[in-house]
Amino acid sequence: MSQAVRNTYAQVSGEVYAEVRTFYAWQMRRVDALDIEGFAATFTEDGEVVHAGGAVQRGREQMLAGMRAALPRYRDIAVRHWFDHVLIEADPVDGDTLHVSYYSLVTQTDREGNVVFEPTFTVEDELVRRDGVLYTRRRVIHRDTPVEPPVQAG
Amino acid sequence: MSQAVRNTYAQVSGEVYAEVRTFYAWQMRRVDALDIEGFAATFTEDGEVVHAGGAVQRGREQMLAGMRAALPRYRDIAVRHWFDHVLIEADPVDGDTLHVSYYSLVTQTDREGNVVFEPTFTVEDELVRRDGVLYTRRRVIHRDTPVEPPVQAG
Amino acid sequence: MSQAVRNTYAQVSGEVYAEVRTFYAWQMRRVDALDIEGFAATFTEDGEVVHAGGAVQRGREQMLAGMRAALPRYRDIAVRHWFDHVLIEADPVDGDTLHVSYYSLVTQTDREGNVVFEPTFTVEDELVRRDGVLYTRRRVIHRDTPVEPPVQAG
Repeated sequence: MSQAVRNTYAQVSGEVYAEVRTFYAWQMRRVDALDIEGFAATFTEDGEVVHAGGAVQRGREQMLAGMRAALPRYRDIAVRHWFDHVLIEADPVDGDTLHVSYYSLVTQTDREGNVVFEPTFTVEDELVRRDGVLYTRRRVIHRDTPVEPPVQAG
Repeated sequence: MSQAVRNTYAQVSGEVYAEVRTFYAWQMRRVDALDIEGFAATFTEDGEVVHAGGAVQRGREQMLAGMRAALPRYRDIAVRHWFDHVLIEADPVDGDTLHVSYYSLVTQTDREGNVVFEPTFTVEDELVRRDGVLYTRRRVIHRDTPVEPPVQAG
Repeated sequence: MSQAVRNTYAQVSGEVYAEVRTFYAWQMRRVDALDIEGFAATFTEDGEVVHAGGAVQRGREQMLAGMRAALPRYRDIAVRHWFDHVLIEADPVDGDTLHVSYYSLVTQTDREGNVVFEPTFTVEDELVRRDGVLYTRRRVIHRDTPVEPPVQAG
């Protein structure tokens, strides 16, 4: 079941919390530096990204092609991805698989220093640890949209 | 003494740091999903919230009533609470009580993807651990206001 | 080599992760409260700050003088520094020296609650632990600027 609709949450150890936050600190430096090869290398070879609009990229080659096509729109801006509220859950079967979700805020700063914001997103990742190193195996990006307020009893 | 005016700070273990960050990741998902019952359930039954304007809600029933009344203003926006600089201190007497403060930034994204920001806040929480689960027992929300710069010696 | 251009990253323990995040939570509360003496005390006596524009402050006295001169522009705003993606690496020789880098976003909220943003920054710190307490020994602040997209193979 999606973490978004569950009724409880799992604890995580301090070690794994630091490991995951460090992984994302590294992965986001790569994408924000437009180091698309380095970014793709933080995914498994068969890594998959499901974008908010529904487009799916499967494997590093598709990811690289997609990122290369998107590069021109970053020519004059410094982009930064900010994460928060990371929820981490170990897979019940495979201790080297982690189910993670987090909030994401993206800033774009132009050469004059003006900052604009993309819409906020919530991301669900499946991470896998291989030889002690984390990789993203699957990423599903959800654009945050208004929720219908619950019906109120009279 | 309030954490805002103390001269030092306490260390926290990696385990408790991850526990507290995970608790907030969960609690904020509830409020941002407008799951007001789920959000109220992250407070103790007698939980108390002191809002920035001075209004006080005591107990889950008052909290629920206040949140129900506020729901209409979230009808067309996706709200997200972002936290940072979490300071955690174990109570010197009761190891299952934690005194926590943190920065809070709130984004509101409309259906077109435009992001606006509420004023920033600093929050002080008293958390209590019961059967291994954290709950908020008391929350005091401070709106960030300009401080009077200190007088400068000639 | 700068963390910005390396090809890999170091893991950090949960304990050190929590220690460093707690240190910054405290240090930023000091600067955001305009407690310039308290802020300077989080640096070593010979602490050094290299600002984004190239200006260098060496030692607490120079830091205090610089901050006193800057105080007037904070008279009517509440400033808050937000950090993310903290990368921490223990010095290979001295276990009490940490090399840290992080993203920084700065909000300025006026008395009416309007929030404006400074350009985003990436900061590199050298921290040193003395008698169990962390201090900043050196800080280099980089303003985030657009990167030149890599040349694309035909």
